[in-house]
Amino acid sequence: MLYEGKAKQIYATDDQTVVRIQYKDEATAFNGEKKEQLAGKGEMNNCITSILFEYLHEKGIQTHFIRRISATEQLVKRLKMIPLEVVVRNQVAGSLVKRLGLAEGTKLNQPIIEYYLKDDRLGDPLINHDHIATLRIIDPNTLADIRELALNVNEYLHKLFWDKGMVLVDFKLEYGIDEMGDVMLGDEISPDTCRLWDRETGDKLDKDRFRRDLGDVVKSYQIVWKRLGGTQHV
Amino acid sequence: MLYEGKAKQIYATDDQTVVRIQYKDEATAFNGEKKEQLAGKGEMNNCITSILFEYLHEKGIQTHFIRRISATEQLVKRLKMIPLEVVVRNQVAGSLVKRLGLAEGTKLNQPIIEYYLKDDRLGDPLINHDHIATLRIIDPNTLADIRELALNVNEYLHKLFWDKGMVLVDFKLEYGIDEMGDVMLGDEISPDTCRLWDRETGDKLDKDRFRRDLGDVVKSYQIVWKRLGGTQHV
Ligand SMILES: Nc1ncnc2c1ncn2[C@@H]1O[C@H](COP(=O)(O)OP(=O)(O)OP(=O)(O)O)[C@@H](O)[C@H]1O
Ligand SMILES: Nc1ncnc2c1ncn2[C@@H]1O[C@H](COP(=O)(O)OP(=O)(O)OP(=O)(O)O)[C@@H](O)[C@H]1O
Ligand SMILES: [Mg+2]
Ligand SMILES: [Mg+2]
Repeated sequence: MLYEGKAKQIYATDDQTVVRIQYKDEATAFNGEKKEQLAGKGEMNNCITSILFEYLHEKGIQTHFIRRISATEQLVKRLKMIPLEVVVRNQVAGSLVKRLGLAEGTKLNQPIIEYYLKDDRLGDPLINHDHIATLRIIDPNTLADIRELALNVNEYLHKLFWDKGMVLVDFKLEYGIDEMGDVMLGDEISPDTCRLWDRETGDKLDKDRFRRDLGDVVKSYQIVWKRLGGTQHV
Repeated sequence: MLYEGKAKQIYATDDQTVVRIQYKDEATAFNGEKKEQLAGKGEMNNCITSILFEYLHEKGIQTHFIRRISATEQLVKRLKMIPLEVVVRNQVAGSLVKRLGLAEGTKLNQPIIEYYLKDDRLGDPLINHDHIATLRIIDPNTLADIRELALNVNEYLHKLFWDKGMVLVDFKLEYGIDEMGDVMLGDEISPDTCRLWDRETGDKLDKDRFRRDLGDVVKSYQIVWKRLGGTQHV
């Protein structure tokens, strides 16, 4: 094992440029303060992420994803991760309610992109372009590319989820750099990292069910998976 | 009186386009939680702001400042204030220590500009370009102008303070729009809104003396004033 995060374990493979991701059942929130085992969550996140990365690949977006190899595992390109959480928002939810004083669900005229420094010790603070330049995280051109890519991903995924009866309220992306120096999407895109609401009822189908003790967490993830066409298990 | 803030009162004058600012002795910090009367503070901030705005005027920078009319009062153009606090940083201090995990005093390779939403109810949160667009606070071109102006002000003031034995660590600007639609500097530039350190000893000569209970608050403001050439009172 190369390293273990809160939601996944990363393992080396025979190929130096490829790692295996093992999705865990552990759910955490509020910077790790709230913690629980949710049987089946890892499988759902692995399956949903796989579907979404395959979909983005079809659209011509470069990601680390190679293929799913079991219910809870996938192979991906090994990346040097960029320590940013790039959040894309279509409607107001979560921390944005407090930051801007707008009601949850308020539709945004244009997406908001936010950059958070991925640093648990600092509590993943919001940062801006100047902070990113000061910390030399990435150069301004790469940041512009990342922003562009995030907006493209948003357009594709918002439409996909909408067509499947869900609203993509917001989501978090992580990027990395491969051995060729190419910047691409890494990590996961799942109900752990998205806010997804039922298009008709507004029901939450994402990690907010865990954060807010709404129950039926894994059941909701399974609904997302089924609506995305998920049927078979390895 | 048109309105009263934590540090100043704004009065109408016979001229619709001009207001009188009365600087108060009240000091507040931590969003108003800490509060004290500091005799002589209002006078110092009025005098220092006047010197600095006159200096910026000489350098061709448009400000609201017209003239100082008494120890604690000045006349300024009446502005429609833009609800942003624009912070310029040359060295790490204050909230940036926590946000980036860098030591107080760390020199920045290039200035950092931060935009805070001026809203006491929300605790003046950090926001970015997209938040500003969403809230329709100002259009992107005006924001670019404001940024440019802040960097210019920083160059002029950093040099001025340096030549007078002080380091301009960071400061906060507010902007407004006059009756002609021109965007210009408003509010104040004083030890209440700047971090100023003695160039040799590193002693703090600003509001951090109040925030951190270091004593000699007004005495320090008087040092700043004298170093800037302040001698006469109205
Ligand atoms: N293709 C990849 N190559 C290398 N590392 C990756 C790749 N994709 C994701 N990672 C990293 O794997 C780690 C584990 O993921 P996980 O989501 O469990 O961590 P986390 O809890 O979000 O954060 P932390 O890394 O702080 O533990 C993360 O640091 C993530 O950035
Ligand atoms: N030229 C100007 N015309 C009109 N208003 C101004 C001008 N310059 C500054 N102001 C405003 O005067 C108000 C009073 O200033 P003061 O610093 O006391 O307020 P504050 O405590 O910072 O904040 P608040 O406005 O929330 O009370 C501020 O809202 C400031 O933006
Ligand atoms: Mg993660
Ligand atoms: Mg003020």
